[in-house]
Amino acid sequence: MYIEIDFNSDEAIYIQLRNQIFMAIATSQIKEGESLPSVRALAEDIGVNMHTVNKAYTTLRQDGFLKVDRRRGAVVAVDVNKTASIEKMKEYLRPLIARGICKGLSKEEFKALIDDIYEELK
Amino acid sequence: MYIEIDFNSDEAIYIQLRNQIFMAIATSQIKEGESLPSVRALAEDIGVNMHTVNKAYTTLRQDGFLKVDRRRGAVVAVDVNKTASIEKMKEYLRPLIARGICKGLSKEEFKALIDDIYEELK
Repeated sequence: MYIEIDFNSDEAIYIQLRNQIFMAIATSQIKEGESLPSVRALAEDIGVNMHTVNKAYTTLRQDGFLKVDRRRGAVVAVDVNKTASIEKMKEYLRPLIARGICKGLSKEEFKALIDDIYEELK
Repeated sequence: MYIEIDFNSDEAIYIQLRNQIFMAIATSQIKEGESLPSVRALAEDIGVNMHTVNKAYTTLRQDGFLKVDRRRGAVVAVDVNKTASIEKMKEYLRPLIARGICKGLSKEEFKALIDDIYEELK
């Protein structure tokens, strides 16, 4: 799994880490049932505090992307509940789309971005 | 302008406030050239610290949604740069779409959400 953190970004490091794990799962770099690195190993590897990695893993567990196995550590286990996921995604997308509308982005431009990103992540 | 803050949310208050202002501009509740409430008035109104409102306004100014007028305070002034806005939106959408892919959301389901939200904000 390749993790890239931008230490100059305004975005909290645990959020960047969580997002990179989303990308790794979405692109099958890491698959259902596989273990993530231990908190300690990942923290050392990317040069961040163990609390930061822990926070990212906790969020991912709460949101149904991981489970914690006593022996194997954090394991990818995506809890798919389509209806709940769509509702949640709508909450996340709403302010982004409002932001885009302010900047004059059309529905078609949004949809073209969706196509581009799906293509990229394929 | 109607602002609703969820004090139980995990999302930082200044982010919620910023998102609500995106919604207010997108839905023309507040229009280009109009003043936002003063930092003090808005902080009192929604029951948050002045620093929180200030942080939301600063972010909005940096991202080209407001300008600060010495006499009129924070004024809606959307800096529309289509190419930059589309690039930035792509950065915001990428982790969300990766998240959705993990949860099994299809491109078509994303596009349907875009339609729904545009309809809602119209």
